[in-house]
Amino acid sequence: MEGRLPSWRPGPRRDAILEFLDAAHEVPVPERFACFDNDGTLWCERPRYIQFEFFLEALRGAIKNTPDLADTPEFAALIAHDQTALDELGLKRVALALAGLFKGRTAEEYRSTVRGFMASARHPELKRPMDQLRYRPMLELIGELRALAFTVALVSGGGVEFVRSVSDDLYGIPSELVAGTRIAYDFRRQQDGAPLLTRTARVDGDVDEGPAKVVTIQSQLGRRPILAAGNSGGDREMLEWAAGSDGPSLAILVDHDDADREYAYLSKAASFSEDRPITEVGADLGWTVVSMKEDWADVFT
Amino acid sequence: MEGRLPSWRPGPRRDAILEFLDAAHEVPVPERFACFDNDGTLWCERPRYIQFEFFLEALRGAIKNTPDLADTPEFAALIAHDQTALDELGLKRVALALAGLFKGRTAEEYRSTVRGFMASARHPELKRPMDQLRYRPMLELIGELRALAFTVALVSGGGVEFVRSVSDDLYGIPSELVAGTRIAYDFRRQQDGAPLLTRTARVDGDVDEGPAKVVTIQSQLGRRPILAAGNSGGDREMLEWAAGSDGPSLAILVDHDDADREYAYLSKAASFSEDRPITEVGADLGWTVVSMKEDWADVFT
Repeated sequence: MEGRLPSWRPGPRRDAILEFLDAAHEVPVPERFACFDNDGTLWCERPRYIQFEFFLEALRGAIKNTPDLADTPEFAALIAHDQTALDELGLKRVALALAGLFKGRTAEEYRSTVRGFMASARHPELKRPMDQLRYRPMLELIGELRALAFTVALVSGGGVEFVRSVSDDLYGIPSELVAGTRIAYDFRRQQDGAPLLTRTARVDGDVDEGPAKVVTIQSQLGRRPILAAGNSGGDREMLEWAAGSDGPSLAILVDHDDADREYAYLSKAASFSEDRPITEVGADLGWTVVSMKEDWADVFT
Repeated sequence: MEGRLPSWRPGPRRDAILEFLDAAHEVPVPERFACFDNDGTLWCERPRYIQFEFFLEALRGAIKNTPDLADTPEFAALIAHDQTALDELGLKRVALALAGLFKGRTAEEYRSTVRGFMASARHPELKRPMDQLRYRPMLELIGELRALAFTVALVSGGGVEFVRSVSDDLYGIPSELVAGTRIAYDFRRQQDGAPLLTRTARVDGDVDEGPAKVVTIQSQLGRRPILAAGNSGGDREMLEWAAGSDGPSLAILVDHDDADREYAYLSKAASFSEDRPITEVGADLGWTVVSMKEDWADVFT
C-alpha cells in the first residue's frame, strides 16, 4: 500500500492522512463525504485569485467596448492598481462590480467565456497554463478518497459558476458537488413565451466563507463531511465541522510556506473573535497542518 | 430492447419516451441530466402530501407534551380539520408553523425522526407502507436513464431535508441531487466552542415551486435538464425549461386520472397568467402527458 500518496514526503502529516484512510474502511459508505476548499487548497491563489484574473480580462474587454466603464469607482481603482482604494471599497463590492459585467448573460454564455479564458490564459508569475496550477499531492488524496467510494465536493468562497465551469475537467467533480458564492438568477419569458434564465449582479444568500460554508454544505449538499481541507480563515468553521463529526475524521490545513516553489504567506482567521494566523488556530485544534515546503515532494500537476 | 419499461402500456406516450431514450445516445454524457418532481410524480400525494402526514404526527406528539400548542391558530385549524381556516391561513404559513416544530433540532435529529415515521407509517386510505407508494413506471424510467449514464435529480416543492431523508432508500438518489424548499440553518457555538448547526423556522430563499424550480436547478445543481417530469402547475416552468433545451428533450406530465387505482384530480397551473388545468397547458406545449389510467399497466411498487 506504500504506493499511496507518492508526492507526500514521509512524516507525521502523511501518516495522519494514511491513518484516516485506513480508518475510513469502517465508515458506512453514505457517510464517506469530503469537502475541499478550492483557492489555495487545490490550486494556486496567488498573487490573485484565478477568478479575479478572469474578471480582470473581462473588464479590459468591456472597457474596450464601453470606455465609460473605466470611471466606475471599483473599476478605476482596479485599473490604477490603487490598493488603498480597493481596500476601502472592500473585496465584496469590487467582486460584485466585476460579476456585474455578466449581468443579463445566461449560465451557458458565462461558462463558455470562463472556459475560453482557462484554455488560453497563463499564470502571471509562474508562467504556467491554468490547468497546471493544481496541487499534485491534493489530487492524489482525492484519488485515494475516490478509491474508497468517498463523495468529494468543492466548497469555495468564489463564485460557484466559475468553479463549475472547470471542476469536471480539473478535478472530475460534477456541478452538483460544487458549492460557492451564488449570483442570483432572474427568470423571465422571451417574446415567444420561452423561459430565459439570466445572471443578475446580486449575491443569492451569503458570501460562502466562514460559518456560511457549513450552512451551504448542509443546505446544498445535505451531508456532514468527515474530511475537510482548506487553507484560510474562511475555511475554519468547515474544518471544525468535519473534525467534530462522529467516528474517524480529518481536518487538513495547507500552510503556504514555500516561497521557492509557490508562495509564502499567512492567512488570518477571518471569523471568531481573534486575530491569529489560521495555522496557529489549526494547531491548537488538532488539525493536520500541512507544510507545503516540508510535506510535499512535488507541488504542481 | 422491448424488455424496456414493462409497466408502460404500448402507445404514443411509451413510444415518445423510448424515442427520447434512443436519441439520448447522441447527447454528450455531462448533458444527460434529468429532473423529477417528487409528490404526485414519483409517489402518491393524496389525500395529503406524505410530508404533511409526517408533520401531523409530529404535531400530535408535540401537543401531548405541550398542550398549549393546540391554541396556535395554524395548529387549531389543523386539529379541527377546518379547511376554511386553513385556506385563509395559506399552505405556506401552515407549513412553516409545522416546520417550526423542529426549530433548534440538528439535521441528523430531523432525519432520524423522518426515517422513524417512514418505517412505521401507512397511507391513510390505501393502507400501504410508505415505501410502496412509489410509481413503478417512473422507477423503470429512472432505471433506463441510469443505464444511459444520466444524472437523475429530485426537484421537489417540499422540504428538501424531508426528501433527502428517504431519497437514497426510495430512489437511489443521494442528498446532493435533491433540491427543494430549504429551511434556514442557524450556525452557533456550544459552550466548549464546538460548532452546532440547527434548524430555524424560516425559509431560506423561495418556496421551490414554479420559476423557483428553474432557479434552484441552476443554482444548486448547475446543469440544464434535457428531461423533466412533474404533475402540477408548480412544475410548469421546470418542464418548459427542459423542453426548451438544445437537442433531444422530453417533458413528462403525469395526469392523475385513475380513481380506481389511485386518485383522479386536476392540478391548476399555479403560475403564468391563466387558470387552466396543467394537463391542457402541457398538451398545448407539446409535452408527453401521461394518463395514469391508460398508460400504466401497474401503478405502485
